[in-house]
Amino acid sequence: MSEKMIKAVDEYFEFFNNQDAEGIAQLYANNAKVTDPVGTPTKVGKEAILSFYKLAVKNGARLKRNGPIRISQNFAAFAFTVSVGAMTSVDKDVAVEVELPKGGMSIDVIDTFKFNEEGQITEMNAYWGPSNITQI
Amino acid sequence: MSEKMIKAVDEYFEFFNNQDAEGIAQLYANNAKVTDPVGTPTKVGKEAILSFYKLAVKNGARLKRNGPIRISQNFAAFAFTVSVGAMTSVDKDVAVEVELPKGGMSIDVIDTFKFNEEGQITEMNAYWGPSNITQI
Repeated sequence: MSEKMIKAVDEYFEFFNNQDAEGIAQLYANNAKVTDPVGTPTKVGKEAILSFYKLAVKNGARLKRNGPIRISQNFAAFAFTVSVGAMTSVDKDVAVEVELPKGGMSIDVIDTFKFNEEGQITEMNAYWGPSNITQI
Repeated sequence: MSEKMIKAVDEYFEFFNNQDAEGIAQLYANNAKVTDPVGTPTKVGKEAILSFYKLAVKNGARLKRNGPIRISQNFAAFAFTVSVGAMTSVDKDVAVEVELPKGGMSIDVIDTFKFNEEGQITEMNAYWGPSNITQI
């Protein structure tokens, strides 16, 4: 189970950095929940999740993991940095519901994933906010 | 609110590294919940939380934060490394309910804190497991 979870997290980074939203969505269970960032409305189900990631990868954001993946029973947690080029105001409103600077930026994020027995992600929570954004 | 949360996380590290379990417990709301590691039984309420931290700090564990504190509305998440000296089998059974090596070790952990409006921690989840333990 631990290996399945680590593989899923590694693939999450790989798919994201290849702008493969469909690949990311396939890591999720059908009725999965995504809250990114925590405190904003939760996206429920594969269709909503796929739409979310299509927007998220559209600007060519790059993810770089910082430190090891923490594995706690059927949960994984990991820290990473997202580097994003300049976004349009439309993209940023729809994609993340948090005010973002207009130029390039890097964002420090921590994600937690909950997995089912098949090794699919059932819940994702992303922790980040304005204080974690650096303009670059 | 963001400043209150960052201050609480900073104090959490300070109290822990001074083996001040009472100080840590004071950062929590009365009816707070602590799950450490995630997947093990949750400790509820200040008394249970104080007992937990008394055991946790007893072996002189040192916490060192890795990377910035992520602030997501009324949640904080942060990565850190715990360095622990040799523990007795009694301590380790009671303290964490996870099998730990007998010698010194370091553990890579990610914690999430949920805060109430008074800036007190209402929920703490710690993500770590056997794969995050390095014998030193």
